[in-house]
Amino acid sequence: MFELLKTDAHTKARLGRLTTAHGVIDTPTFMPVGTQGTVKALDPRELREMGTQIILGNTYHLNLRPGLDIIRAAGGLHQFINWPAPILTDSGGFQVFSLAKIRKIKPHGVEFRSHLDGSLLFLGPKEAMEIQRALGSDIAMVFDDCPPHTSTPREVRAAVERTIHWARECREQPRAPGQLVFGIVQGGSDAALREECAKAIVPMQFDGYAIGGVSVGEPESEMMKAVELAEPFLPADQPRYAMGLGTPAQLVEMVARGVDMFDCVLPTRVARNGTAFTRKGTVIIKAGFNKADFRPMEENCDCFACRHFTRAYLRHLLNVNEILGIRMLSVHNSHLFLKVMADVRTALAAGNFPEFRREFVANYVPSRKVLSTRKKETER
Amino acid sequence: MFELLKTDAHTKARLGRLTTAHGVIDTPTFMPVGTQGTVKALDPRELREMGTQIILGNTYHLNLRPGLDIIRAAGGLHQFINWPAPILTDSGGFQVFSLAKIRKIKPHGVEFRSHLDGSLLFLGPKEAMEIQRALGSDIAMVFDDCPPHTSTPREVRAAVERTIHWARECREQPRAPGQLVFGIVQGGSDAALREECAKAIVPMQFDGYAIGGVSVGEPESEMMKAVELAEPFLPADQPRYAMGLGTPAQLVEMVARGVDMFDCVLPTRVARNGTAFTRKGTVIIKAGFNKADFRPMEENCDCFACRHFTRAYLRHLLNVNEILGIRMLSVHNSHLFLKVMADVRTALAAGNFPEFRREFVANYVPSRKVLSTRKKETER
Repeated sequence: MFELLKTDAHTKARLGRLTTAHGVIDTPTFMPVGTQGTVKALDPRELREMGTQIILGNTYHLNLRPGLDIIRAAGGLHQFINWPAPILTDSGGFQVFSLAKIRKIKPHGVEFRSHLDGSLLFLGPKEAMEIQRALGSDIAMVFDDCPPHTSTPREVRAAVERTIHWARECREQPRAPGQLVFGIVQGGSDAALREECAKAIVPMQFDGYAIGGVSVGEPESEMMKAVELAEPFLPADQPRYAMGLGTPAQLVEMVARGVDMFDCVLPTRVARNGTAFTRKGTVIIKAGFNKADFRPMEENCDCFACRHFTRAYLRHLLNVNEILGIRMLSVHNSHLFLKVMADVRTALAAGNFPEFRREFVANYVPSRKVLSTRKKETER
Repeated sequence: MFELLKTDAHTKARLGRLTTAHGVIDTPTFMPVGTQGTVKALDPRELREMGTQIILGNTYHLNLRPGLDIIRAAGGLHQFINWPAPILTDSGGFQVFSLAKIRKIKPHGVEFRSHLDGSLLFLGPKEAMEIQRALGSDIAMVFDDCPPHTSTPREVRAAVERTIHWARECREQPRAPGQLVFGIVQGGSDAALREECAKAIVPMQFDGYAIGGVSVGEPESEMMKAVELAEPFLPADQPRYAMGLGTPAQLVEMVARGVDMFDCVLPTRVARNGTAFTRKGTVIIKAGFNKADFRPMEENCDCFACRHFTRAYLRHLLNVNEILGIRMLSVHNSHLFLKVMADVRTALAAGNFPEFRREFVANYVPSRKVLSTRKKETER
């Protein structure tokens, strides 16, 4: 299922290949996020053209709209959205804890009110696995308890215990044919809890392991630490997935720490705000300084947007609220994340990942948001 | 410049070919509208794939944003928007009379306040031609006075006189290299005024003639009448363009009345409202009755949207406000308008246009809006 092709001699970076029911994924890989059954603003052809091998679907959202009956009638999520390649579905746990305003944690899951119409719903290990079985995703995630960054040590411990308990329940549920299931390690930035959680989850023998509870508002250093604390306890011959992050430079750093899989809404979300990712950091394409700049968003980029359009034109489109502007920034940003991972794989194959990493991170100007978390760290 | 290839034996329908600086246009033709430098939600590749030979650009809007300096610096509109095929630009007259709230008609144009920021602007024959020269469109339109449907006979007469006067001024302005200029015939539904206007405009020797003042809120019968009144006075060996209309069935009827060129915002506007055009009329794709309908929007349609997606999926996308829904309905609707014109040309070439027309119009269920205008007519 997972072939570990090569491990970097100087870092923990790994080159691999993951085989699923709907196709092969070269790792390290970036997975564009298709929350509601579409990667926002993009169509499947565009996704394939930029090298997408796997996308994400969202259990919580798809269960609310269009609902399981519709997706079942369509013959599963791949058929419904016409994406014949691999799909990973999250368990809905993250949304239950972040979106639903009113919730009550019970032994076998969470009772909560829909963020859409307030209707009373229940999601737990059994339900999450049943929904993911109906969706027919290639990789299903266990239902976990993902506490916010601001949680007390006591709350983090409770979340770890629930995550372990629920993982065991998930493990016992039936799966869709060929469906892989990944366990999730929680534990915040507490070394003992990360170890404890990993040591409880790994013996359950999942097909891969995710590091959860990252990218939940914590400083960058804590995000890195969480991964460093969990990674040593994950089996080398199985894929590792760091959930919901990050910037291109953070992804490269995570690869160096032994992570194989990533997903993030940043490429499309930042696009909708009129900002492009580049290998040198972000550029506000919507800004007035681009109005007569006839270069592409990024020099030497071979994405559809950079091959066809200038910053000046894209700036105009964003300025007058034309959908094509958002579309083309979504194309470019998603392409960049995928291309960086492709470059990482090339570097790993060639044996020069440490040089690639050093150069990439040195060239990448972090956003003010990331810098502010670094500053806070230093001040402590 | 314009080759009249064939005239139908039983109707006034014509098969033709119009050669412009950026390419050839087969007529009858439909021109997707790119108001602000983009056909809403579509990219140039999608436009070419659906058979688009010419698109529209908008003098009023492009002059406000991004402004002429930017488009000049880009090397013209084709370069700025990366559309290497023909472009027709309107003169801005229609927008000055429909969008600008405060305006003062003067001998050489109209003083008005921008609908965006209220700044004082002036647009007349000289300015409109100068802007269109800078845009570098293949076909420029003269600056006319397009009165609303509710105008008094006296106002329509004044508009005709101004239109004639301004057309003469436009005729004297310099053009971009190879740029064609079309005259516009106004006159509402007044036979004498339509004749008078046409007889004044045609001797000015434009490269083609548009019938203006249609699709300005009048009943369908008056729209047809306006075209019927103007057409006999237009030279047979030059292209005729009915501005800003209509439904697919209306276009076929207009072809039968001797019109060669059409533009309309309906395909993309209606798409944004969640409705699809089909050969049998419109279908509200966003409606709940489509939620488990796994057929394409239109059977046997070979557009990108119908080849890839079901009504159920598109309904879901529209329901959760995903851009891909609007995109795919814009693709389908624009494709349909272009395909109907392609079918019209095939029928004309085969000599069976009257049968095509009869069948098409019989199958096409008019919208309630169109039906209501027909009803009013009957009640008079």
